[in-house]
Amino acid sequence: MFKISDTEVDFKDYGTPNSSWTSETLRLYNKFLTDSWMKFPSTRRLPLLMKRFEDLKTFPKGRILTRCTDEEGSMFEFAMFYSLDNARMACVAQFGPYLEGVPGIAHGGATAALMDQVLGTLAFLSLGRVMTANLNINYIRAIPLLSTILFDSELQSKEDRKATIICKVTSSDGSVLHAEGKGLYCSLPTCRHFCFSNRTTRHISHLLQCGICHV
Amino acid sequence: MFKISDTEVDFKDYGTPNSSWTSETLRLYNKFLTDSWMKFPSTRRLPLLMKRFEDLKTFPKGRILTRCTDEEGSMFEFAMFYSLDNARMACVAQFGPYLEGVPGIAHGGATAALMDQVLGTLAFLSLGRVMTANLNINYIRAIPLLSTILFDSELQSKEDRKATIICKVTSSDGSVLHAEGKGLYCSLPTCRHFCFSNRTTRHISHLLQCGICHV
Repeated sequence: MFKISDTEVDFKDYGTPNSSWTSETLRLYNKFLTDSWMKFPSTRRLPLLMKRFEDLKTFPKGRILTRCTDEEGSMFEFAMFYSLDNARMACVAQFGPYLEGVPGIAHGGATAALMDQVLGTLAFLSLGRVMTANLNINYIRAIPLLSTILFDSELQSKEDRKATIICKVTSSDGSVLHAEGKGLYCSLPTCRHFCFSNRTTRHISHLLQCGICHV
Repeated sequence: MFKISDTEVDFKDYGTPNSSWTSETLRLYNKFLTDSWMKFPSTRRLPLLMKRFEDLKTFPKGRILTRCTDEEGSMFEFAMFYSLDNARMACVAQFGPYLEGVPGIAHGGATAALMDQVLGTLAFLSLGRVMTANLNINYIRAIPLLSTILFDSELQSKEDRKATIICKVTSSDGSVLHAEGKGLYCSLPTCRHFCFSNRTTRHISHLLQCGICHV
């Protein structure tokens, strides 16, 4: 199995404040730090996965979509906090000017991407390695760029290799509901039924039903 | 009303081949050029919207999420083609290494972002200025980075200010179904019921129901 050394991997946690954060984003971040939540690190790739897949050789410069930029503040700025007791993941975020849809307003895909990141991380904590099977988002009110927003996600149900997670996206004080969504995630088996390296990935729907594959 | 001059706007069409495109992406692009489809330009902001909103002053460096990078091939590479006769929008695309989720595989948010872009553009052609109200995506099979993919979207229904659009994401030859999705878009009125400039945007759900607001 292909392995890369720790020295080749960027283990930096990018979910920490930088000069692009607004005072409100920083305030909410500090509030979570002092509450009963635990901060979850956010790296540019997935350390728990990256030693497993041959594709790391093919894409040595790969970066997770939500951590792909070197320019602080231009795209996604966020920090995730989790509470295992009640299976929740919160995310303090602000969207930079490169995430525009309608001028001045966040692209619907930006909300979808960060929601998938947050929900997928919570699913990972519940099931291990996962992929998204379904993502369903209601957009309620537009998100102005650089406003501070809060993703509050919660494990709704878990069964075998499936986890359903719900999420609300609100303003920093919770008074404005920007979006709400639901994600279905399925765990990845390590057996022959699923293989990234030769790109003969089986249907995700198969993973949801298969009684042979085990994580 | 705030206006900016044409000289300040980047009207370049980024939906054209560059050196990062694989031979298969280029082949499919050329096939669409010679078929009965018409190429739809893809700029970094929305020219038809950008003269309207005060937020352009606040975010002079805004870029649409799917056109935000200067580094060719690193993120989204795509070209859109439309067929007004049957209300379809096709999009030839490849995802670069900065759109990673699981190593070597496209982030679910990348699929969502480009789907929202394609469906939103088709909705715009049907309704005028629009915003996303709902996006629902089934992820069927993982998308390897740098593979050539095809988004094929079609207007399913249109009623008043609402348009429902369905989409399939396949491999370049259509043999592999990667994802399928549905988007609900609503048109933006220009009357007092909707206002970006002071950020008192009304609920999108209101737009779906309101009989007073007109585009």
